[in-house]
Amino acid sequence: MSLLEVAPHEFRRLAAEVTEIAADYLSSLESRPVFPKTSGQETQHLFQAPLPEEAMGAKAFKYLHDVVNHSRAQNGRFFGYVLGSGEPVGAIADLLASVLNQNVTAWRSAPAAVTLERTVVSWLAEAIGCAGFQGSLTGGGSLANLMGLAMAREAKAPANEHGLAGKCVLYASEEVHMSIPKSVALLGLGRENLRLVPAGRDFRLIPAKLEKAIQADKASGKTPMAVVASAGTVNTGAIDPLPEIADIARQHNLWLHVDGAYGALAAIAAPDKFAGLELADSISLDPHKWLFQSLDCGCLLYRDASAAQRAFSHTGDYAKSLSSDPIEGFAFFE
Amino acid sequence: MSLLEVAPHEFRRLAAEVTEIAADYLSSLESRPVFPKTSGQETQHLFQAPLPEEAMGAKAFKYLHDVVNHSRAQNGRFFGYVLGSGEPVGAIADLLASVLNQNVTAWRSAPAAVTLERTVVSWLAEAIGCAGFQGSLTGGGSLANLMGLAMAREAKAPANEHGLAGKCVLYASEEVHMSIPKSVALLGLGRENLRLVPAGRDFRLIPAKLEKAIQADKASGKTPMAVVASAGTVNTGAIDPLPEIADIARQHNLWLHVDGAYGALAAIAAPDKFAGLELADSISLDPHKWLFQSLDCGCLLYRDASAAQRAFSHTGDYAKSLSSDPIEGFAFFE
Repeated sequence: MSLLEVAPHEFRRLAAEVTEIAADYLSSLESRPVFPKTSGQETQHLFQAPLPEEAMGAKAFKYLHDVVNHSRAQNGRFFGYVLGSGEPVGAIADLLASVLNQNVTAWRSAPAAVTLERTVVSWLAEAIGCAGFQGSLTGGGSLANLMGLAMAREAKAPANEHGLAGKCVLYASEEVHMSIPKSVALLGLGRENLRLVPAGRDFRLIPAKLEKAIQADKASGKTPMAVVASAGTVNTGAIDPLPEIADIARQHNLWLHVDGAYGALAAIAAPDKFAGLELADSISLDPHKWLFQSLDCGCLLYRDASAAQRAFSHTGDYAKSLSSDPIEGFAFFE
Repeated sequence: MSLLEVAPHEFRRLAAEVTEIAADYLSSLESRPVFPKTSGQETQHLFQAPLPEEAMGAKAFKYLHDVVNHSRAQNGRFFGYVLGSGEPVGAIADLLASVLNQNVTAWRSAPAAVTLERTVVSWLAEAIGCAGFQGSLTGGGSLANLMGLAMAREAKAPANEHGLAGKCVLYASEEVHMSIPKSVALLGLGRENLRLVPAGRDFRLIPAKLEKAIQADKASGKTPMAVVASAGTVNTGAIDPLPEIADIARQHNLWLHVDGAYGALAAIAAPDKFAGLELADSISLDPHKWLFQSLDCGCLLYRDASAAQRAFSHTGDYAKSLSSDPIEGFAFFE
């Protein structure tokens, strides 16, 4: 047995030790202050050290108590950062997921996990009234927003092969989450080409202002590409008027992405508030918020799988799938 | 107690049950076939079902045996997909990490975890001979490559605010990993603007060919932006001649990104083979490969933190940090 391996009885002992630390934390969760008694100086003192020459061995487990005591306690009094409070059963499953260590990019490399991901994604789609949408779990809502806008770009002004050409513009309400301008920047579209359309006193995008902005851009030779609707916004939870926005997007042949990372899973409980969600081309969700899954668990849904393929598939020779079976051949959006 | 909460004794019982499943798997790991006896039809039969109306409760744990038996067993006979074989102690720590559920974007939201990430990143940098580099853990080497090239773009041909203008070109050997053309595409630069420079019979990029390609592009009015060196390549493990490439990059004022996802952590054991790594502007690593950490654990290192700030910082009002303490004020690359 090599130094990297752990005998089964040792694995059981270590897992039991960590389970106790986690159970103690959960037992004390409600009485913990939402911000721990700590400071930058103290965390540096505790958690900074020179690169060690020797392995720490079991001593590493002692530090876990310090980690717990200098973490944010996410109990019922903690409302910061739009965070779900976590859900212990999912956390327990993460132990097994990390032991199995599957590469979930292709059926051949993770038969069970790839199939489960598809099932979960289709359940999420159906649960919010978008049955038939496909998609992918992601590292969070920000990444799902980036992917949705990458699909929009490749659908409306393809750039993957030849690069961006011309000035494309995108639209969102002034209440939009910062991940949207960040995505626009990363995609090379330029944040100045994201029009922040005024919202009303209810913090919802005003459709007439959207129409006006599109008209003005068209008149000046720009190419409208996509609209991002929020459902709901991070500051107030406002849900943009989805049917009206979808109507404008359809008339002008724009991609409609709905940023539902904060709110759209609430469509399970209050579908009427989210009427029009099913008109989107792509939707971002965050099961690590209102479905309480452990970080990170985001989700991108899209109406048309071939648009995802056009945006994302580009596989090296070494990773080409040689199977023609429709299930077993799945790899990298292909 | 709500339905979402789990009593401490129940948490302990469930964690012990999953620990047993994981320990049994680890005990049988060496004797398992590297590909499970399964088919697309069988995984669909096992893991697809209509969206349930009722919670599965404890029945969900029974399915974990099926998940294990239809997963890839990563034992010593499994060489596929450049995967590390996983490391059970790290997997156990993932249980606690998922229970603590920290948002590791800012010191204020995860004092211990943010400080630990900085420590681990600085250790990784020092271990491969790049002491002083800063960086970030990422969802994998592909994401680290994307971030490295996003930094290159913002440093050499800023596009975040105004969008891409002009034709920028990038260079890599013809042996480069597919994540590089994918990143170039996502950034809007166009895959056709990635020059695949010939490699020699040793599969290493030929510096004279790189120099020639840069000269040709300059002569035709293009703007050389960045070189990607591989250390090592995914197909053969070849390490590009880093000092010569760094010299050419410096002469032409190009960003030098080293894709070290597959190989660069081997610099811990064989530093001579990686001489010149410390001349890079950015480096991608994958602790989930040769450091055996559970998926996903990638890392981006960079020489100049202000370049990361220029590329990535753009924070919404609701998330602005109000602290002026240099440690406690850290948030989102700012």
